[in-house]
Amino acid sequence: VDIYFECLPCLLRQALEASRLATDDIEIQKEIMKQAALSISDYQNYRYAPEIGREIHGIVKKTAGISDPYKDIKARSIKAAEELYHFLKMFLHKKQDRIYWALKISATGNIIDAAINKVNDVTNLSCIESEVEKEFAICDIEYFKKRLKNCKNLLIIGDNAGETIFDRVLIEDMIDHNITYAVRSEAIINDVTLEDAIDSKLDICSTVVSTGCNTPGLIVEECSATFKKIYNEADIVISKGQGNYETLSGQSREIFFLLKAKCSVLADLVGVNVGDYIFKCNSIK
Amino acid sequence: VDIYFECLPCLLRQALEASRLATDDIEIQKEIMKQAALSISDYQNYRYAPEIGREIHGIVKKTAGISDPYKDIKARSIKAAEELYHFLKMFLHKKQDRIYWALKISATGNIIDAAINKVNDVTNLSCIESEVEKEFAICDIEYFKKRLKNCKNLLIIGDNAGETIFDRVLIEDMIDHNITYAVRSEAIINDVTLEDAIDSKLDICSTVVSTGCNTPGLIVEECSATFKKIYNEADIVISKGQGNYETLSGQSREIFFLLKAKCSVLADLVGVNVGDYIFKCNSIK
Repeated sequence: VDIYFECLPCLLRQALEASRLATDDIEIQKEIMKQAALSISDYQNYRYAPEIGREIHGIVKKTAGISDPYKDIKARSIKAAEELYHFLKMFLHKKQDRIYWALKISATGNIIDAAINKVNDVTNLSCIESEVEKEFAICDIEYFKKRLKNCKNLLIIGDNAGETIFDRVLIEDMIDHNITYAVRSEAIINDVTLEDAIDSKLDICSTVVSTGCNTPGLIVEECSATFKKIYNEADIVISKGQGNYETLSGQSREIFFLLKAKCSVLADLVGVNVGDYIFKCNSIK
Repeated sequence: VDIYFECLPCLLRQALEASRLATDDIEIQKEIMKQAALSISDYQNYRYAPEIGREIHGIVKKTAGISDPYKDIKARSIKAAEELYHFLKMFLHKKQDRIYWALKISATGNIIDAAINKVNDVTNLSCIESEVEKEFAICDIEYFKKRLKNCKNLLIIGDNAGETIFDRVLIEDMIDHNITYAVRSEAIINDVTLEDAIDSKLDICSTVVSTGCNTPGLIVEECSATFKKIYNEADIVISKGQGNYETLSGQSREIFFLLKAKCSVLADLVGVNVGDYIFKCNSIK
């Protein structure tokens, strides 16, 4: 799969937003934009847009001399999502098909995304009440329920900080399964790290592990041996978000992709509209 | 003035749209995107975004081996605008303050813009009837009327093909002045060239001249000696559109800028909202 052309201007826009989060120094921002455009010009040497994302956000961190430009945004997202926790639990409590709606809650959390949304919007979760009621556009729930019956080990590959609280609601509803929650090995955009997962209390209801990979979209070959074992041996893998979808959708093992389609590239790829929610298994055509 | 950072991802998006207009060959599109990103990385060596625009659209033409990727779009825009001509004349006929509304018609034509709009939208002029009724957000009309009294030579620096028809309505309303209409020296985006101006019948109501400059935003130093003389000796200069605003707003001579604010960079610069119409003289602070 080639890099989608549409991702290139979007990555350059991300570089600008990240540079402004990282520093107020215009000269540093200038240098970041120059280096980011240079990396983007080299896009044919990358396999996935998230790899270019890693490169660009690496440039931002290095040039501005800051390890995590999204630290405050992530903390605010977790706090804002935490305030929705009881609403989400009550919402789920009223539903008949609990697992469907628990998955839907987790998918709704995927609204949080500092890469695609304007960064100011990530803590604006006022839309959640109407978003959470929307049904999935694609939903392989019956097959999932069947697979869940014999599931001993379930792996969730996380996406964004804040979305983690929504994932907690899902995990708490599947608490009788042995659940592992995988996070990025270091800070990249607003993606969930070990620290964010703990701040989201995911360590209480699941085993939190680092993948060993720091791309904003999991690249299996880059992961630690420990994580690869968990990944290969899991009965069910749930992958959250667009970045993971891009890097994992070509994998041979069975994966359930749980996400919101947030741009036209992803929506066209899956065959849904922008804004739609997806719960799709790669073994069902 | 530095290049605005926001222009950089927008220029890369333009490169993609232009590459798709120019060719269906993915390999050529790949090469264009690579070269375009390289040019953008070099943005600190340019004075104005329209200079980078010239570079990028030059890459598209050269790589795809096509002299004018926007030829069809320009022809369609002129045709679509031509169909509105009588509506515009009738609209103006009903107005008391004819010169204000003639200027407003010309500004409304600035909606046509293949650089900023998605290219498919340029012939969708169904919004014109409501747009043309909107008043200017900034309007130095009283000063313009005063200057028009003693005006022997009036120069209009054109912007887009199709917008030319709207400009014709303005010119026909100032027909007792000696009007020169300046166009780009060669095809660049959907900007008006000599051929487009003649297709728009501007040669009947004005003297059409090439500026000698091919940037999508006039750079005076690059213009022909003939054009510079016209520019320097004109009693009134009206500059159309954002590109010309960017390259001419720092000029020492008096210029009236007539345009629609189509992006947040321009709108913030002038102090209006995106979508607002502007008729602003640089000698009035």
